Amino acid sequence: MDAEFVNPFLNALQNVLSMMAQMELKPGKPQIKKDEYARGDVSGIIGMVGPQVKGSFSISFEENLACEIMHKMLGELPDSVDEEVCDMVGEITNMVTGGAKKELAERGFDFDMATPIVVSGRDHTISHKSEGAKLIMPFNHVAGKAYIEICFDKLRA
Amino acid sequence: MDAEFVNPFLNALQNVLSMMAQMELKPGKPQIKKDEYARGDVSGIIGMVGPQVKGSFSISFEENLACEIMHKMLGELPDSVDEEVCDMVGEITNMVTGGAKKELAERGFDFDMATPIVVSGRDHTISHKSEGAKLIMPFNHVAGKAYIEICFDKLRA
Repeated sequence: MDAEFVNPFLNALQNVLSMMAQMELKPGKPQIKKDEYARGDVSGIIGMVGPQVKGSFSISFEENLACEIMHKMLGELPDSVDEEVCDMVGEITNMVTGGAKKELAERGFDFDMATPIVVSGRDHTISHKSEGAKLIMPFNHVAGKAYIEICFDKLRA
Repeated sequence: MDAEFVNPFLNALQNVLSMMAQMELKPGKPQIKKDEYARGDVSGIIGMVGPQVKGSFSISFEENLACEIMHKMLGELPDSVDEEVCDMVGEITNMVTGGAKKELAERGFDFDMATPIVVSGRDHTISHKSEGAKLIMPFNHVAGKAYIEICFDKLRA
C-alpha cells in the first residue's frame, strides 16, 4: 500500500476536523500493522468495495478526544461517549471516506462505500481481517489520540 | 426489511455453526432496533454494497459463547477472546454473509462484500448508522448469547 493511496485518507481526516471543529491533529508515523491494534473508546468503521479492491477503513478515538471534538463542534462538552458522540463519529467516518473516495476516483481508482458502523466501549481493539497489508496511523492532539486503519484485499489487481 | 431478506442471514448463521461446531443456536425474536444495542465481547462486522443497496452486517458474541465455539471447532477451550478467537469470528462473519449473499443473488438481489473487521473488548456496543431499518436478532445458547444486526440504506430502490 503506497503513499499515493493512503494520503487521501489522511488529508481527508485533517480537512474534516479542521473544517468541522477547527482542530489540528498531528499525524504520527504510519506503520504496516502486524501485532499492533488500533485501540480506542469509540470507533467508526466502514466497508469499501470496488472493481479493483475490497477493504475497510476505521477511525478510533480516545474518549477525551471524541468529547473535545464534540465540544468544538457544538459548544457542549459531553461527560462521556453518548449517542450524540457516536452519531458524530459515524458522520466523520462517512466524510473522511467520502473525501478520500473523491480524490482517488479522480485518479481512476473507484470504490463504493457501505454504511458506517460505530462501536463504543472502553479500550476496545479493532482488527481488519484482510489478506492485504494493513496500515495503521496514529494522530496526536492534546486532548487524546486517534488511530486510523486502512486495509485492502487486492490493490491494483 | 422483510423476512424474505433477513432469513438468509439467520439460516446461514445456523448452518455455519451447525457445520463448523455442531452447535445449535436458538433464534429469539427479531426486532426493529430503536434504542437497543447489540452488545458483546467480540464482534465481526462487514460492509455490503450492491446496485440496489448498501448496508452492514454484524454478529456479536458473549465471550463464553465465542470460546465454546472455538472449543467445539478445535478441541481447545481458550481462557478468553484471543487472536485465534478473533480470527474465527472474522471467518464466521465472512461465511454467514457469503451464505446469505448466495441465497439472495438467486433471487436477483445482488451485493458485494467488503472485508470483515473484528472488534474485541468487554461489553462493547455496536450501532449501525444507516437511514434504513435496523434489524436486531438475539440467539441463545447455554454457553451465552449472540446478536446479529442487519441494516440497509435503500432496500429495493
